[in-house]
Formats: sequence, structure tokens, C-alpha cells
Amino acid sequence: MRASILTIGDELLIGQVIDTNSAWLADSLSELGFEVTKILSISDSSQAIAEAVKELMGQSDLVISTGGLGPTSDDRTKPTLCELFGGQLMLHAPSLSLIEQIFHKRGLPLTETNKNQALIPSSCTPILNYHGTAPGMIFRKGNCFLISLPGVPFEMKNMFTEGVRPFIEQNFTLPAIVRLNVNTFGIPESFLSDKLKDFEKFLADRSIALAYLPSPSGIRLRLTATGDNKGRLSNLLDMAVNELKGLVGENIFGFNDETLPSVVSKKLRGKNETLAVAESCTGGYISHLITQLPGSSDIYKGGIVAYSNEIKQNVLGVSHDLLISHGAVSQPVVEAMLDGTLRVFQSDYAIAVSGIAGPTGATAGKPVGTTWIGVASRETRRVELYAFGNLREVNIQRAAYTALYQLLKLMDKD
Amino acid sequence: MRASILTIGDELLIGQVIDTNSAWLADSLSELGFEVTKILSISDSSQAIAEAVKELMGQSDLVISTGGLGPTSDDRTKPTLCELFGGQLMLHAPSLSLIEQIFHKRGLPLTETNKNQALIPSSCTPILNYHGTAPGMIFRKGNCFLISLPGVPFEMKNMFTEGVRPFIEQNFTLPAIVRLNVNTFGIPESFLSDKLKDFEKFLADRSIALAYLPSPSGIRLRLTATGDNKGRLSNLLDMAVNELKGLVGENIFGFNDETLPSVVSKKLRGKNETLAVAESCTGGYISHLITQLPGSSDIYKGGIVAYSNEIKQNVLGVSHDLLISHGAVSQPVVEAMLDGTLRVFQSDYAIAVSGIAGPTGATAGKPVGTTWIGVASRETRRVELYAFGNLREVNIQRAAYTALYQLLKLMDKD
Repeated sequence: MRASILTIGDELLIGQVIDTNSAWLADSLSELGFEVTKILSISDSSQAIAEAVKELMGQSDLVISTGGLGPTSDDRTKPTLCELFGGQLMLHAPSLSLIEQIFHKRGLPLTETNKNQALIPSSCTPILNYHGTAPGMIFRKGNCFLISLPGVPFEMKNMFTEGVRPFIEQNFTLPAIVRLNVNTFGIPESFLSDKLKDFEKFLADRSIALAYLPSPSGIRLRLTATGDNKGRLSNLLDMAVNELKGLVGENIFGFNDETLPSVVSKKLRGKNETLAVAESCTGGYISHLITQLPGSSDIYKGGIVAYSNEIKQNVLGVSHDLLISHGAVSQPVVEAMLDGTLRVFQSDYAIAVSGIAGPTGATAGKPVGTTWIGVASRETRRVELYAFGNLREVNIQRAAYTALYQLLKLMDKD
Repeated sequence: MRASILTIGDELLIGQVIDTNSAWLADSLSELGFEVTKILSISDSSQAIAEAVKELMGQSDLVISTGGLGPTSDDRTKPTLCELFGGQLMLHAPSLSLIEQIFHKRGLPLTETNKNQALIPSSCTPILNYHGTAPGMIFRKGNCFLISLPGVPFEMKNMFTEGVRPFIEQNFTLPAIVRLNVNTFGIPESFLSDKLKDFEKFLADRSIALAYLPSPSGIRLRLTATGDNKGRLSNLLDMAVNELKGLVGENIFGFNDETLPSVVSKKLRGKNETLAVAESCTGGYISHLITQLPGSSDIYKGGIVAYSNEIKQNVLGVSHDLLISHGAVSQPVVEAMLDGTLRVFQSDYAIAVSGIAGPTGATAGKPVGTTWIGVASRETRRVELYAFGNLREVNIQRAAYTALYQLLKLMDKD
């Protein structure tokens, strides 16, 4: 079954707002077993809406549209669909009652404009909106359904879950789909794809789709199996994951939504151990990645952003001689930062990073991107040199994720 | 002039990735004077790519596509465009040289797969990629140009700025557009819009468009004037900004791309003074916001993420008694953190934050969102209590930006 998503709104076409509804809907529809073939964004114009609806309905079994249902004159979706599918605008009493409740709760008077939101085309089946004022609408033409929802993300998501999903499950016969992400780090995309050449044939023979999703936080391999029996598909994916482990097991750090910060945190929590961080060029980003996860105070003792040599000396106890003879971006200084961090924070593990994020700061023999990353437990430490690129933002991200990956490897050996 | 945006990638159609490229491109194209009429996302399928390119080129003067240019077999954009526009894949020596440089710098061997990224259709004009391995391509059919760029956001953005924008300015005649952002903080959207009711009429009379762009980092007011004379439009916007300053001058902290971190950094640099930060609930995020800006080592001495009471005591010298009698999330503790930060880092200014980001950590009388934020110079300090919401991520962001805004206000008084 093919589905399309249509997002309507001038704010999207001038780049004022990032369209997050489409990804959420695409994920939800894919999980239900649809093949989403198009995501289209258009402006609040009757002509553009009518053309897009006709085109997408001609190519799909289901079209979900969001947006253009507000009470103001620049919202054109409802009158355009009414004209397109025929019928007249009629008062939908249950929707009016929900609108009245919302205004009553907020202590606001109900205007004529608000009441008009309960008018819907007689040619549609309404979907109640318990979280806002615009009802949803289901239209049918031939074998294709069009479902129109408001653009406000939390209204749209709640209406999809409460009203659209049950409707779809009743009205469509969909294949079974099982998805799995295998998350890797420390291997460039081209090397990974070289290593997986035979594996891709293995997948193709079993009709499993593979996608590479690279970012500074690693490369996510997405496996999608489609068929008619979820149990059988899950077994197929288990086999595929075992194959993958044999090929690039070293680089696999997690599955599905797991990230390096979440996996490191979980592992620390499991061992009832703690981490502290000394950051120079990453400037607090490693600490931020850890502390943005709920409950991080269990495993994270704290961090120092040691941007100046004085702080490396005064707080972390890195010796002045070491800083002068080797420079702040050097193996001995990172080793001393590790020692200082373990001592000051009394943590079980430490991370220390010193590098040149750029664009300034390069010296002879140490170009922008030069970065020393160290990790340590109370017994052992591992310090490595990396040559990242020229972009400050990317260097900060790569250094941070590399440090977490290096820590994970150290913990695995402990 | 009409433009369309085409984003290509299976990951978009199953909702694994939010398409942020489209909003960025839509904003950039609008600023250049294009009317963006469609944003379309499709899968990595040759048929889908060919159909979409033909359709969009038939409706637009310019189509920008992103994605599908990676080295792996699921990337179909380049062979499809080669077939569509004719010609043969030929080695582009300058691109190969850039690819070699990247691999050389990273100390990695160059595989055949990597080298193949420098093959481009003879029917296109290449755009060099200084930040990754896939070159961009410009094709022409009739009066319409198609420009294909990689999907990795930082590569795409840099290539747009370095290669695409100059090409567009040479090849298109576009209306004059002048845009200006006025960046505010510390006033909710509904209050702001009430204060600006008459101002909106002032703008409408002069055909200036106003948009409100709210986020945890403040509300950006975007003014757009369109016409045929940039000088006249700039004068109009200057008048509008003067009006705005009279209405909400207190809350305006910057213009255009200025952010609270950049404005604070600039002000410190101007005074040749320094900042240090002690963070509890913000967990390194304030330090990250400052240090992600190039050259921040001039004005930023360092920071402590004092997640545990021990660190507040041992490093910042907050007294045990204070922590026990008032709790870590309290005015006296934040005051002591400020004193400790100024002393340890020997900085001219300090920020200290202690709060409950959630979802756990609430205590009697201190619900999730309770946050004390303090700023200090060597002479004076200002500590304020805030009641943020229930979402951890948003609380961290709001606390960080509020702290920077509070510091700016303190510096303005100094």
C-alpha cells in the first residue's frame, strides 16, 4: 500500500519552520506497513492544494495532509477540500461541543470565528480533536482515502493515534514490517560498505532493505524486512544482525534508538560506577551529551572545561613544565588531565580531551583538527591522537563522540 | 522566479531523519528573491528521482536537490541524472584531488569506491565540495537549472554558500529583497504581539512583512521588505527598527544572526574581560554555547559542571552547612557558586545555575523546573528564581539562555 504526506503552510515554503510532522507521520505510516512514496510541502493556496491532492490521490492508497485548518482567512484547506469533494459545510455538533469546552476551560468568550471551526464538509467523516479547535476530516475517492489533520504537532499526533490509526487498521490490509537499527562508530562509510559487500547480497536474497545513515555520532545501519509474518521477519533480522556482528562487531555499539551517550550511561549504571570529564576543545559538549539524558546524576560526577592553562594547572594539577615543554595539545598533558580528573572528582572513569577545534589556534606541526583524546579507569588509560577536519562545529562533535566510543572500548576491556 | 526543493533519501520517507535541509534552503532561496512553490521528498529510487526532476523542472526556474550522492549502491542520484541529461561519467580531476586531500589528512587509504565519487556526468557543471567527498552538479534544460548537492547538512550549506549562491546571482534576475532580524529575549510571544499591534499596521502600510520566530533562545522578529531598490528598502527597515526600539528596546539583544552567546562574547571581547561558568542542571550546555563560537578562548576562562555536592564543596568552596540547610537548588548556594567561580577561574564575570531539570529530582516546595540563576561581576551580583516547565531538554535550554540574558543586563549596568 502506498501513502503520501502533504504538509500545507506558507511558513514551510519560506523556511520559517522546519517540517517535523512529515518525519513523524512517515515513521508512523511505515511502521503500519505503508510504503511512503512522497512527502510534499505546498503553500496555503487553494490552487496548490487542489492540484496536490488530485496528484497524490492518483498515486497513493492513502494521503495524509496537515495544516491550513486554522480559523483565519489564510487557511484554505477546508474550503478547498469541500469544493473538491463536493457537499456543503455543515455544523458538526460533537466538534462544537469540544470547542466550547476548550474556551470555557481557558475562560475565554467563544467568537463566531471559533464556532465556524466546527463546520465541516458533508462529504467527509469527521475526526474529533480533543486537543485543539480544528476537527480532522476523512474523504474518499475511488479506493484512496485523504485524511486532513491540523498542523499543530501535538494536536496532529494525538489525533493520529486516537482517530487515524484505528481507522487505518480497520480499512487497510497491510503487510508485516519489522525494522531494526544497528548503530556503529569508528569506521568510515566507504570502509563499512566495502566490508558489507557480501552481506548486502545476503540481505537482497532475503528481501531485507539496508540503508546507511551517517552523522558525526556514527553510522546507523537500518534493516527493514517486509513480509506477512512478523515472527518470521524478526527471525530473519536476528540472523542478519548475527552476520553483521561477525563482520563489524567491533564497531557496533548499540541498536535502535541507542546512542553513544545512552550506551555509556547505561553501562556505567549497570556497574554502579561514575564518570567525570575534563574538556578543552570540546568545551562542555561531552558533559552536555551525558547530562541531557534523564537521571544522569547517578553516573556523572561532573566536569571541568579547562579552556586556559591556569585551570589545567590550578584545578587539575597539570604541571607548568609539562604545559610549557609539550604544549596543551599533547599526550602528556592529556594524561595529566586524566589523572587530575580522577583525583578531583573521585570518579571511576575519566575522559580528557585537548585539541585545536579551529579555525584559529593551529601551530607548527599541530594543524586545526589535531586532537588528543584520553580515557581512563582507576587502573588503566588509553590516549589517542586524531586528525579531524577544518570545521569547528564538526570537530567538536567528532571529538566528543570519539571520546565516548573510546571510553566504551576501555570499559569493555575492564 | 519560482524555485522547488527536492530532497532524496529513503531515510526521509520512513521518517528516520527530519528534513532540515529544506527549511534552510527555502529560507536561503526566499532571501535571494525566489518564490519557493514546492518542497518534495522522495526515496532513493531511479524512477522516483527521474519523475520528480522532470515534474519540478517543468514548473520552476530553479530546482535544488539534496541527497543520494554517497558512495554506496543505494545512492541513485548521480547515475539517474546522468541518464536523464545525457553524457557520460567522467573523472573530475579537481574533485579527485580534494577527495585525496581528505583521505590523506585522515591518514586513510583511498579505495576505488572513494575515487568513483570524483566521476561526474559530462553534461553538468561541477561544484567543488571542500568539506566532503561528493561534488555538486549543475544541469540545465531549457530555462531551468537543476542543482544537485549532497544531503549531509554541513556539506550542503557550505557548498550552497561557496558555489551555488554566486552561480544564482550570476544567472538569475531577481527582485530586491531586504531582510532584517530583530532578536528579543525575556518577553512571551503573546505579550510581544500585544505590544506590537500598532507597529504591525505601520509595517502593513509600508508592505513590510513581519514574522515571529519563537524558540528557547528567544523570539526572533523577521522583517522582510520586497521591491526594486535595495537602498530604499534598507531605509524603510531602519525606520521600522527605530519604531521597534521605542516599543520593546529593553528586550532587543541583537540583530540578524546575532545570538545571546555571540552578543555576550562580543561584549566581553570589547571590554577585554573574561567569563567563567558553574553549571549544575544545565550540565555543560552554557559552556558549549560559548565555546562553539570561534575564538572563544579570548573571553572564556573555563567552567565547572558541578553535578554533585562534593564538587560544589571541594572545587567551588560552597560550604557543607549551606548545602545542608538550604539544599543545592537555592539562592545562597548559587551565590556561593558565583563567589567560588570568580575565585577559582580569576574571571571578571561569572554565571552559576542550579535547578531541577527533571523528570526526577523534585522535592517538597521545589517542583521540576525550579531554577536559580546567578550572574556576577567582581563588584555586584544578581540572582533570580525561575519556574520553568516539565521538559528536561527545554528546561536546560531556557536556563542557559536566561543566564546569558541576565549576564548581558548586568554588563549593561556595569
